[in-house]
Amino acid sequence: MSEFRTVGLIGRRGDPRVAPTLLQLWRILREFDREVIVEHHAPGLEDCGADVIRSPRETMAARCDLLVVVGGDGTLLSAARAGSAWGVPILGVNQGRLGFMVDVAPGEVRETLNAVFAGDYLREQRLLLQARLRRDNADTASFLAINDVVIRNQAAIRMIEFETWLDDEFISQHRADGFIVSSPTGSTAYALSGGGPVLHPSLEAMALVPICPHTLSDRPIVVGARQTVRIVLRGNVTTQATFTCDGQNSMSLRAGEALEVGAAESRLHLIHPKNYSYFNILRDKLHWGRGPRLNPDST
Amino acid sequence: MSEFRTVGLIGRRGDPRVAPTLLQLWRILREFDREVIVEHHAPGLEDCGADVIRSPRETMAARCDLLVVVGGDGTLLSAARAGSAWGVPILGVNQGRLGFMVDVAPGEVRETLNAVFAGDYLREQRLLLQARLRRDNADTASFLAINDVVIRNQAAIRMIEFETWLDDEFISQHRADGFIVSSPTGSTAYALSGGGPVLHPSLEAMALVPICPHTLSDRPIVVGARQTVRIVLRGNVTTQATFTCDGQNSMSLRAGEALEVGAAESRLHLIHPKNYSYFNILRDKLHWGRGPRLNPDST
Amino acid sequence: MSEFRTVGLIGRRGDPRVAPTLLQLWRILREFDREVIVEHHAPGLEDCGADVIRSPRETMAARCDLLVVVGGDGTLLSAARAGSAWGVPILGVNQGRLGFMVDVAPGEVRETLNAVFAGDYLREQRLLLQARLRRDNADTASFLAINDVVIRNQAAIRMIEFETWLDDEFISQHRADGFIVSSPTGSTAYALSGGGPVLHPSLEAMALVPICPHTLSDRPIVVGARQTVRIVLRGNVTTQATFTCDGQNSMSLRAGEALEVGAAESRLHLIHPKNYSYFNILRDKLHWGRGPRLNPDST
Amino acid sequence: MSEFRTVGLIGRRGDPRVAPTLLQLWRILREFDREVIVEHHAPGLEDCGADVIRSPRETMAARCDLLVVVGGDGTLLSAARAGSAWGVPILGVNQGRLGFMVDVAPGEVRETLNAVFAGDYLREQRLLLQARLRRDNADTASFLAINDVVIRNQAAIRMIEFETWLDDEFISQHRADGFIVSSPTGSTAYALSGGGPVLHPSLEAMALVPICPHTLSDRPIVVGARQTVRIVLRGNVTTQATFTCDGQNSMSLRAGEALEVGAAESRLHLIHPKNYSYFNILRDKLHWGRGPRLNPDST
Repeated sequence: MSEFRTVGLIGRRGDPRVAPTLLQLWRILREFDREVIVEHHAPGLEDCGADVIRSPRETMAARCDLLVVVGGDGTLLSAARAGSAWGVPILGVNQGRLGFMVDVAPGEVRETLNAVFAGDYLREQRLLLQARLRRDNADTASFLAINDVVIRNQAAIRMIEFETWLDDEFISQHRADGFIVSSPTGSTAYALSGGGPVLHPSLEAMALVPICPHTLSDRPIVVGARQTVRIVLRGNVTTQATFTCDGQNSMSLRAGEALEVGAAESRLHLIHPKNYSYFNILRDKLHWGRGPRLNPDST
Repeated sequence: MSEFRTVGLIGRRGDPRVAPTLLQLWRILREFDREVIVEHHAPGLEDCGADVIRSPRETMAARCDLLVVVGGDGTLLSAARAGSAWGVPILGVNQGRLGFMVDVAPGEVRETLNAVFAGDYLREQRLLLQARLRRDNADTASFLAINDVVIRNQAAIRMIEFETWLDDEFISQHRADGFIVSSPTGSTAYALSGGGPVLHPSLEAMALVPICPHTLSDRPIVVGARQTVRIVLRGNVTTQATFTCDGQNSMSLRAGEALEVGAAESRLHLIHPKNYSYFNILRDKLHWGRGPRLNPDST
Repeated sequence: MSEFRTVGLIGRRGDPRVAPTLLQLWRILREFDREVIVEHHAPGLEDCGADVIRSPRETMAARCDLLVVVGGDGTLLSAARAGSAWGVPILGVNQGRLGFMVDVAPGEVRETLNAVFAGDYLREQRLLLQARLRRDNADTASFLAINDVVIRNQAAIRMIEFETWLDDEFISQHRADGFIVSSPTGSTAYALSGGGPVLHPSLEAMALVPICPHTLSDRPIVVGARQTVRIVLRGNVTTQATFTCDGQNSMSLRAGEALEVGAAESRLHLIHPKNYSYFNILRDKLHWGRGPRLNPDST
Repeated sequence: MSEFRTVGLIGRRGDPRVAPTLLQLWRILREFDREVIVEHHAPGLEDCGADVIRSPRETMAARCDLLVVVGGDGTLLSAARAGSAWGVPILGVNQGRLGFMVDVAPGEVRETLNAVFAGDYLREQRLLLQARLRRDNADTASFLAINDVVIRNQAAIRMIEFETWLDDEFISQHRADGFIVSSPTGSTAYALSGGGPVLHPSLEAMALVPICPHTLSDRPIVVGARQTVRIVLRGNVTTQATFTCDGQNSMSLRAGEALEVGAAESRLHLIHPKNYSYFNILRDKLHWGRGPRLNPDST
């Protein structure tokens, strides 16, 4: 029998539209004779009675061999973050709109699970970022990010000044609205809006993207993920910036404090159908091949 | 009776798909009791017999009060250029895909012409550019452009060097693949691919856009169209660049020669239905509001 | 005698380096037999005794025919804002670093004032922006901006959603970190960092620049300053954005509220020496002609 | 004794300014008791008599343990290309202007060589690209590139259409002026002008950068160098594009033909002083930290 004995079911929070897909998944998984653990409050299984085993999101990863997440990329992101689901493979099912990580359509669920349980699937490891806040020369906290670690000015202050280092080598000083350290997974999220490149998910690399930099030649840099990027906020005692991991956990960074970002030891494990194509999703998301059709020159 | 007594009909060359629309237009115009002049070789009217008056594209503007062009923006562009159709209002009918200038759908043709002949329409004047090539301190030729005047390196030479002036004020020297002087109409064409801004068509302005400039801060500049931009190619006797107007008429520019670009005296006159909206077209062309939906941060 | 009878002197606040230039200016202006009004707290004139007439910054514009501002562009910006110095011509003297508006070097002060008092100078009018906050369908406040009006997300919220309109025509809906409406003067400030074009100062135009837009084709648009741009924040009752004029006066904008930006009736009047060149300053500021010298292909 | 027994000397062609540095190097190398081979026509050694051993550039790599190149990055590029100097370490001496690869100043030559011969240096391997032209399903030629492989439209044709593949996975179809496949070394050259990111030289990656793409979301992508990028030109029998390696060897590409680009087996070996810092050079080249100082908001 397959490796995926116990399967966890997670849906986008507060979205009743995931209910039918969750119910469908639950039934199929039972047909396949799996033990199924359903996230607390996940809708759609109200009529399934005492059979439904529930668990808080935070402890599901520890109990499951596979997590199936229904929703958008953000659902998968927050489910993985909440459960520290590193190492547990995740299969993403979208709600009608293809996502970068939720690449299985509801209508393909049976076929996909059938193949997955037969061992016929792709397993992909995605780089995770680890951020450490260094305060008074001591690590005071450590955070994981799937997409990006972002340092930003506070709302009322237009620009922050900071220095960047790659391991022990000084990169530069910057004046900007902020700074993004992005994983390949995050390179198609906020970093792309900030002018960063797309990084193929197989790359062990991070994109360093200044946000609205004062110096026009302060361009995105791609560095290897075995190295550590250090960002040191400059300013005086009143200076404050914020930083977030995956757009969550907003925290303060004060002048003199440093944020160090590098590869985490863990990886995010994604399960894809055999016909998965990264560029197929990218083309869909970026509307490639569909224009924009600009005013041409002739004919 | 309306001002548009004689109407010219022009279709995209070599495209049989315009035939039904041309035939439909011819019939409607005859119903409206207009004199109709059809471009030589325009398809679709083979069965209409001796009634069909034909004319070469080049002389239609002189004989017509209104030109109806069926095809894409490029069809309108080349029809207007070929006929020097400055001053003659043009109505653009698209072939299923909305264009910036061909904004009437085939299915709306009757309704639109009805309104136009009733005086119920918008008339828009678009800035035209005039380029003068100065060779040996003499104007040697003058060209009109609806979209843009582009100076480019030759294929085998990666970069050209040139100086730019605004009237008598030195702007800068540049090293780049080329340089675009774009009208508002052309700002959504090649100049946009080169990183230029969208210029609202009501602006009397030109966008100056260096192509792949060597200096990263060599950014697009928008200047008033009452001023003249002069581009002087630098180099030695072997240096050659090419320049084009609306992507056509490729000609040589040699070191020391100057190209001067400013507003032409003529304007391009476009006829639009009353409900015409520039931004409506822009949204459609640039896929605004439809994404790309990137990997979000949460939910 | 010249029109500039009474001259106001303003220096960068809290910067003792402006003291010698202020003293020099005071002496020269007295030699030229001008009445001189010095801003309260301006340093350098402590030994000049009872001759020195002082005034708060806010009332100097009303009393003077000419303001001389010593510092950087920001000093001129805040001096003009504080004094509502619209209509009163301003001469900017820099502190060693050329500025866009403070274009006279300390060493050229005597020569420049001599020329100015002889009527030998350039007078330039710069577009000012006026922002109106519409709350509950009533104008609740009006603000002037020399550089830009900026709507921004709050620190902890990554993205805001808003609609834009040009007069009564819908432009688009946007998801972005914010939105900049920039004057030509501001086009070389924050808007340039956000990817906007340089607008020549003679243009009666505004640049609309989305900040880190979610949709990659959501590009900067240049529109005429006779038109009004309206930005309507979308969201629910908890949604809040901030907006600033020239990076100051941070205020809240709530979902449903609109900010309208257009040309102010007043203009900023700048006095320049006859040899003033906008592009000369731009070349200096953007390091044009000095590189960056990238890795070339050959030789 | 050190490994670098025989040292080759190469100077920028046709530039008499390299003569003093070449002479200085020759004398120092002789002091260090090295065998020195000087490129044919290299200037500066006319008075050194019969001692000077000359060689064509093409055969120097085969005879030398170390090449010292005097000039700019382009000199090193073409010297390495001409000599197929893969595997032979190269030390670059600049002519007053720091280069990415020619990072030793003339005044530091003695000190640097002393350290290098004492084994006190950094040795860096840079990725080389290999391009294969596939014509009629057969490899017809293979080329190496240090910086980039570039496919471009011909001068008179504004845009080309092509498909891209990563190994066997379809990436997209493109309409653009061209397409750049850049190594990390080339990421600060032409690819940067085209909007690509900086790739740290330690990365085993390539940047794929469309030139002036028609679709605004057709953004740069970074992929691993173990993979192969295939670009297939589309069009009809008259379609022609050109491609170049490092801006040289312009050749034709016809519709249906494919260019495949991946990592070469060889590497470029660079010798640096121990205090070499990549970012130090990058800061200098991109004018980081020196502005541009734009019009600030206040003070």
